Amino acid sequence: MMLCFENDYSEGAHEEVLKRLVETNMEQLPGYGTDRYTQAAKEKIRAACGCPDADIYFLTGGTQTNQAVISSMLDTCEGVVAAETGHIGTHEAGAIEWAGHKVLTLPQEEGKLSADVLEEYLSGFYRDANHEHMVFPGMVYISHPTEYGTLYTKGELAELSAVCAGYNIPLYLDGARLGYALAAPQTDVTLRDVAEYCDVFYIGGTKSGALCGEAVVFPKENTPRHFVTKIKQRGALLAKGRLTGVQFDALFTDGLYLKIGKNAIDTAEELKRALREKGYEFYIESPTNQIFVVLEDTQIERLREQAAFSFWEKMDEKHTVVRFATSWATKMEDVEKLAALL
Amino acid sequence: MMLCFENDYSEGAHEEVLKRLVETNMEQLPGYGTDRYTQAAKEKIRAACGCPDADIYFLTGGTQTNQAVISSMLDTCEGVVAAETGHIGTHEAGAIEWAGHKVLTLPQEEGKLSADVLEEYLSGFYRDANHEHMVFPGMVYISHPTEYGTLYTKGELAELSAVCAGYNIPLYLDGARLGYALAAPQTDVTLRDVAEYCDVFYIGGTKSGALCGEAVVFPKENTPRHFVTKIKQRGALLAKGRLTGVQFDALFTDGLYLKIGKNAIDTAEELKRALREKGYEFYIESPTNQIFVVLEDTQIERLREQAAFSFWEKMDEKHTVVRFATSWATKMEDVEKLAALL
Amino acid sequence: MMLCFENDYSEGAHEEVLKRLVETNMEQLPGYGTDRYTQAAKEKIRAACGCPDADIYFLTGGTQTNQAVISSMLDTCEGVVAAETGHIGTHEAGAIEWAGHKVLTLPQEEGKLSADVLEEYLSGFYRDANHEHMVFPGMVYISHPTEYGTLYTKGELAELSAVCAGYNIPLYLDGARLGYALAAPQTDVTLRDVAEYCDVFYIGGTKSGALCGEAVVFPKENTPRHFVTKIKQRGALLAKGRLTGVQFDALFTDGLYLKIGKNAIDTAEELKRALREKGYEFYIESPTNQIFVVLEDTQIERLREQAAFSFWEKMDEKHTVVRFATSWATKMEDVEKLAALL
Amino acid sequence: MMLCFENDYSEGAHEEVLKRLVETNMEQLPGYGTDRYTQAAKEKIRAACGCPDADIYFLTGGTQTNQAVISSMLDTCEGVVAAETGHIGTHEAGAIEWAGHKVLTLPQEEGKLSADVLEEYLSGFYRDANHEHMVFPGMVYISHPTEYGTLYTKGELAELSAVCAGYNIPLYLDGARLGYALAAPQTDVTLRDVAEYCDVFYIGGTKSGALCGEAVVFPKENTPRHFVTKIKQRGALLAKGRLTGVQFDALFTDGLYLKIGKNAIDTAEELKRALREKGYEFYIESPTNQIFVVLEDTQIERLREQAAFSFWEKMDEKHTVVRFATSWATKMEDVEKLAALL
Repeated sequence: MMLCFENDYSEGAHEEVLKRLVETNMEQLPGYGTDRYTQAAKEKIRAACGCPDADIYFLTGGTQTNQAVISSMLDTCEGVVAAETGHIGTHEAGAIEWAGHKVLTLPQEEGKLSADVLEEYLSGFYRDANHEHMVFPGMVYISHPTEYGTLYTKGELAELSAVCAGYNIPLYLDGARLGYALAAPQTDVTLRDVAEYCDVFYIGGTKSGALCGEAVVFPKENTPRHFVTKIKQRGALLAKGRLTGVQFDALFTDGLYLKIGKNAIDTAEELKRALREKGYEFYIESPTNQIFVVLEDTQIERLREQAAFSFWEKMDEKHTVVRFATSWATKMEDVEKLAALL
Repeated sequence: MMLCFENDYSEGAHEEVLKRLVETNMEQLPGYGTDRYTQAAKEKIRAACGCPDADIYFLTGGTQTNQAVISSMLDTCEGVVAAETGHIGTHEAGAIEWAGHKVLTLPQEEGKLSADVLEEYLSGFYRDANHEHMVFPGMVYISHPTEYGTLYTKGELAELSAVCAGYNIPLYLDGARLGYALAAPQTDVTLRDVAEYCDVFYIGGTKSGALCGEAVVFPKENTPRHFVTKIKQRGALLAKGRLTGVQFDALFTDGLYLKIGKNAIDTAEELKRALREKGYEFYIESPTNQIFVVLEDTQIERLREQAAFSFWEKMDEKHTVVRFATSWATKMEDVEKLAALL
Repeated sequence: MMLCFENDYSEGAHEEVLKRLVETNMEQLPGYGTDRYTQAAKEKIRAACGCPDADIYFLTGGTQTNQAVISSMLDTCEGVVAAETGHIGTHEAGAIEWAGHKVLTLPQEEGKLSADVLEEYLSGFYRDANHEHMVFPGMVYISHPTEYGTLYTKGELAELSAVCAGYNIPLYLDGARLGYALAAPQTDVTLRDVAEYCDVFYIGGTKSGALCGEAVVFPKENTPRHFVTKIKQRGALLAKGRLTGVQFDALFTDGLYLKIGKNAIDTAEELKRALREKGYEFYIESPTNQIFVVLEDTQIERLREQAAFSFWEKMDEKHTVVRFATSWATKMEDVEKLAALL
Repeated sequence: MMLCFENDYSEGAHEEVLKRLVETNMEQLPGYGTDRYTQAAKEKIRAACGCPDADIYFLTGGTQTNQAVISSMLDTCEGVVAAETGHIGTHEAGAIEWAGHKVLTLPQEEGKLSADVLEEYLSGFYRDANHEHMVFPGMVYISHPTEYGTLYTKGELAELSAVCAGYNIPLYLDGARLGYALAAPQTDVTLRDVAEYCDVFYIGGTKSGALCGEAVVFPKENTPRHFVTKIKQRGALLAKGRLTGVQFDALFTDGLYLKIGKNAIDTAEELKRALREKGYEFYIESPTNQIFVVLEDTQIERLREQAAFSFWEKMDEKHTVVRFATSWATKMEDVEKLAALL
């Protein structure tokens, strides 16, 4: 039996989520997100965000959500600013460009975009004379956790938010793995903080216990006009909106979303402890559910026979960075088995 | 308790489909459609189509599928030809135009595009001198059943196919409700016929027993290059490909997809019989699961209190066309109750 | 020697326009429309329009201008409403769709869109329930003269303007041949009226004495943000902005633009008089420089040996509609020679 | 009187070019590039390229040409590879992204993309496992001269061409200033070499003696289908094709295009000699008509009163890189005056 640490979307839905899908399955509900479960999910998310007036929409996946949000908020001559490691600029197959917009990349540190780097870029852009022939920065994209599993602090989010406000452009947070960020012991960022500092963000379901689904939140009465039509136009409106509605209703009942996150963090912490103990070199110190470690190539070959994990990048001739990912579904016993193999 | 005839996507998934989702839920599977259930589903669909080499992809919804297929197959200066009632030109929020292509509309009869009308348009286009300043017809789109529930005959499909072949453009069939077409007693069109006469088509799941999901079939080794990347680029690639894979695996096991269709047809036939008996005027003679009837406005008001159905269009000052839709989930007893109310 | 009535862009530039290009040729001027001739041209157009605050931009051709204006003013889920004969929907190779927007076509009469038809469509759109899945009407496009050479009256423009204002969408006038509209004896529409009733329009140069160039006018402080950048992004910003600036400066000096139009009208009137006298059937009564006449096919063949004109459409088995176009450059003696041949 | 070294498009057209525009002005010619001057220009360019079968199209400006060529040759999921200083990725306002494609940037040296860097990127792309979620490299873009005025050698072009051929993607050369490249004394690259090593390129007119106009050359029977329609669709087809046809006919008569280039080079060489003599530091050694020099900020202020030149970038607190550009129109006496001021 293979030990699976390849990613955080290997299983289906969390049992509570699945149970609710089963229980509500034969209810006759109106389509396109007008059903009562979708409404209930929205209410629960509003409460969790501390934003009673937030506008919320459910989409199916991360790339789709990024494309719909970004292309609905940018003017045609604007691009979206992102760290050069940002998912939208690297592994979304050009979804943003297909929608007509440039991803304007900036240097990053451990996957994070700093307020200083952002401010320097924006002030430079507006200081230089010839920006009329350049793409205007119309939005800032960050991911939390980042593609390296790292986290922004509350202070860093506040700073980024202030820079964006200074240039009157929205700050957008990609929360594909937000559940794992919120559950990290080191973080001082709550969901309410995200809602306070960001102009739009999404709460990822696909990687946190749902079969599919991401919840886009506009916390500040800043929803783009006709956003439902724009979702439809981008092929992203589910006829059976219940599919995402019921799942998010379950995820935001009794704090399940945070609980789910905690399991991923606890198992990741245990795995990191074991790796540290055995003297492995970490490629990056990630406080969330993605662990980047340097392994010898020969060891990788052996390990592959009993465990699944991801190739990240070549380190040198004999070493490779690999990623182990835990999730809401990871069992502690599997972590122990993996540790024993290492 | 409301009688629900509003559409064919009011319930969740067929119980067999849901059961398979539940049974496979905790299996650890690779992502993006590389899992074994997705592979099995493809094999079963190939068998059902009689196309052992067909290339198959699973997407989430109809508009998304139309956008992905059409924009992946057209050259930039080409448009897609459709009946003026075609779904892509009317109720998909401009998804095709957003992807850069014009929908070239032709006159229709009961929602159908005839080979004659198509041939006349195409021959005219290439006869006229100034087509260099016009959008080139690059594909033909039909829906089966049409937006009015009507069906092409095998002969009509063959003719359309021949016209398309004559101009070297693909024929694309939107099968959002294909299950209900195949189950209609009047039809002489089988799934194998669809695969023979069309260059690309999709088998609709959302309206036929799945929570979501459409299966795109390229029967003739004519898949666009890098189609997975194009799906991803359009925001349409599910991380948990199992969601659609498991469902279509179930739908194409033991002929479930056709069985599901039959329930919709049987209940629709019974409702039509009752309506006919009571002397109602049919707006169109639909052989599938959508019934278009003319009702008095006063009657509509009364009926609305106990049954849900769709407004279609105003007929005259006192009459309105409404649509009753049955589905895989419709119960014969609900049809009887509705008939009693009418 | 061939008599040329094929179109109104057969010659180069009007001699006054060319003269100014020659005179200013070696002056060293800044690029991208920041030169003094471009500024002077803008001032003269503002004066001619009676709009001291109008914002003006010069582009190269009609399709380019339509694409830049429409795609800069529409929201992503909006389309542009046009008569079904409108140039943007027929002979611009899908330029609007390539930019992501649908052309929403309405019935026309002699190429004109009526306020009633527009009002009926718009009120219907907002009355119906399901418009969330449809393309929103975001702008109205008319051409003046129309593609059939016909003209709106001042009253008709006022009505269209009022309907647009009622739905808060801009009215856009394509003035590719505006010079010929303004010079028509039957018209009661002045350039000031156009500027009053339209939210944006362009004054065509290519067909009225310029080598190239169209002047886009935003009369109401409603220029899209970063419009220069949007022009650049659409490949429509000339490095040597002087090319259009000098030409429009010449065209709007001493009323040249209107004088130019008058020659086209005078020669067209003479040709129409001769055709009428000889008993020819007019396909449409056009008050401007395009004349649509029904000819016998045998006559067309003979005439083609000595005169160039345009095929318009087949009338019946033996007759064809052809178009004779006059222009700023048409000589009265050529009209007389053509009349003698007819 | 200001000395103008700001750019190479400050004057109108070369006198020979203008003369031909004047001489042919009142000839009645068919539109859209079907006139005899356009045909003659094409023949002359074919001869100059040594490609009797080359397919040639005239567009108006550089950004427009890049957008039309790149978006007509790429598949939807492909991007164009360019040096990070490439014009398409920096100063074209996102024209490529607006057309749906990503600019994939690679490190450069003095504005040049090396075959090694390209090969490493391409081999890496196809070696890595997860490229299905990434933008495919579908074309390589280089500019010659580059944005820094530097030149590829014949050997370097051959190497880039071989790498592209190895991956079956076209090599596209942006020749906005090609005339100045061909006239540089250090170069071993001829127009025939460009036609041999590139799959598509354009010969710039706007910066080399034309009022506007770029000639796109497909030397290898590889013109995209319906390219005229694609040009029209992108708003780039001139009604009066004569405007570019006549100009390129003149530019390619009696070697004018190369002669024009030589003046720019001779004046640039003289300016460089003077600068070197006076001990100025060159930011980059450019063999063409753009000279990048480091000046003290105080000196810049003084110089600005008598000469126009371009700010390039800040060097340090007290120094700035500026650009002096010569052109076909630069007078040697102005160079001497400028040298005297320095």
